Amino acid sequence: MAKPYVIGIDMGGTNTAFGIVDARGNVIASSSIKTAKHSDINDYIAELHEAITRLMEENDAVDKIQGIGIGAPNGCYYTGMIEDAPNLPWATPIPLAQLITDKFGVQCVVTNDANAAAIGEMTYGAARGMKDFIMITLGTGVGSGIVVNGQVVYGHDGFAGELGHVIMKRTNGRMCGCGRTGCLEAYCSATGVARTAREFLEIRKDESLLREIPVDEITSKDVYDCAIQDDKLAKEIFDYTGTILGEALADFCTFSSPEAFILFGGLTKSGDLIMKPVKEAYEKNILSCFKGKAKIILSEMKEADAAILGASALGWEVK
Amino acid sequence: MAKPYVIGIDMGGTNTAFGIVDARGNVIASSSIKTAKHSDINDYIAELHEAITRLMEENDAVDKIQGIGIGAPNGCYYTGMIEDAPNLPWATPIPLAQLITDKFGVQCVVTNDANAAAIGEMTYGAARGMKDFIMITLGTGVGSGIVVNGQVVYGHDGFAGELGHVIMKRTNGRMCGCGRTGCLEAYCSATGVARTAREFLEIRKDESLLREIPVDEITSKDVYDCAIQDDKLAKEIFDYTGTILGEALADFCTFSSPEAFILFGGLTKSGDLIMKPVKEAYEKNILSCFKGKAKIILSEMKEADAAILGASALGWEVK
Repeated sequence: MAKPYVIGIDMGGTNTAFGIVDARGNVIASSSIKTAKHSDINDYIAELHEAITRLMEENDAVDKIQGIGIGAPNGCYYTGMIEDAPNLPWATPIPLAQLITDKFGVQCVVTNDANAAAIGEMTYGAARGMKDFIMITLGTGVGSGIVVNGQVVYGHDGFAGELGHVIMKRTNGRMCGCGRTGCLEAYCSATGVARTAREFLEIRKDESLLREIPVDEITSKDVYDCAIQDDKLAKEIFDYTGTILGEALADFCTFSSPEAFILFGGLTKSGDLIMKPVKEAYEKNILSCFKGKAKIILSEMKEADAAILGASALGWEVK
Repeated sequence: MAKPYVIGIDMGGTNTAFGIVDARGNVIASSSIKTAKHSDINDYIAELHEAITRLMEENDAVDKIQGIGIGAPNGCYYTGMIEDAPNLPWATPIPLAQLITDKFGVQCVVTNDANAAAIGEMTYGAARGMKDFIMITLGTGVGSGIVVNGQVVYGHDGFAGELGHVIMKRTNGRMCGCGRTGCLEAYCSATGVARTAREFLEIRKDESLLREIPVDEITSKDVYDCAIQDDKLAKEIFDYTGTILGEALADFCTFSSPEAFILFGGLTKSGDLIMKPVKEAYEKNILSCFKGKAKIILSEMKEADAAILGASALGWEVK
């Protein structure tokens, strides 16, 4: 018989958040540890085990865990390995699923963080009932989780859905963290917005509240703060960002013709500042047979819980 | 009990080819009619019925047909309709599956031509045993059929897989038949190759065998004929074409991480002239986690049979 809870773990470069989740998607309890404290992966796993065990004991969940799901950077669903992770302090490949399964005595399923978010959205969020949608996560980077026919697209090797690395500028494109130039992520991540701000401030001469901030310290949050004070340049930064994202979504539509694009992450808090140019560029660039079809909507997941919930949904896949 | 044959119909703008196919993928007999002869769709259906009935009678296949599959431009798998077809003489939408089913008394399934080719390749060709691959058809236009997890990607509306209309040049892009600019199809179709030839001949001053042909009459076949005579400019036209296609495939890989890209259609007859720059550009542009993984290969379908076989494979889906 299936047990009543699963554990969801969201492993980020800085923090690892985790929670105990019931079958209705309620986060019973959650906590977190620092990811990068230990130079030995086994010490990290040991601390994670200790912290989660404590959480289970406090919530009468010991021996009631059906499975563990982890969303991890570059995590591979098929192998359970992290194969390449520039933001983590350990040598790759890391046999993450195996390490967790051995330590906890509970089966563990791994995928990347954006796929976990897509699963969460399909199970508990804005994509309930949808069989074809594309989740775009707009954070420090740009990630994606693609669902076709009700199934996450993992590809032949488990690494499909890297839409943050589609090339949007083939000439004079910005350097991307992946080593190439012109990637969507270099423009439409929080970091990309800050880079656009620095470029605009350097090239242009018009006044802006942004000029009051030391140029190297400008964040996407600063751009937002200025934009809502009606700062023209700050608003144009959002227009520029949203236009590139809208053009990208129009291209993505030709691939899997989703019912919806679901946007998730820090940048979506800017609301219409980003959504308006996204939708305008999308409508302007979409192939006629797709016009007016796909919705572009915001995630319905509470951000604090989303990653944990998404990862936890994988825990139910354990047989 | 399943009947021993299916009928595959490949409906093009000029010709409609059709054949009787057995369960092993042998084309028992085939023929064709002109597509655009009749201004009334019902007259076209009547002529098609007459021609196929004659073929069935000649081959002892009457009452032995399990189903009919049609690959048609902009054919929708879900509705059986052709919703928008600039190359056909009839008003859309056309309820094609219904018209055929009613006339023949046999269930009919419709999809677009590139999806039909992908199904054919998966059932009988280079993609046998593959669960994740992308078929790219390089003909008068550029089409695609995407298979994820062993299933054709139809999308929420049945029109997914229009990769010929991904934007490859966002500034100063060529006009495409779809009304937008910069589409892959405007560069990597047979027509695109001819356009590149005209552009190169106009802009450049170096000698070329292509200058002996009236510039408005140059076809991709002419470019090929000159290239195999070691004409430098003609070879550069293939380099230019192949480079754009390779860049596009590298982007497509981020979506579904296929085991293989399968290229199909007239342009692939140019062999290494096109394949070498495609592979070079792909390797140069691919995201590191995908490097060295996906194969780029040629279709194994005999071209004359491919479209009929691909469409016919749909006929077996009929219950």
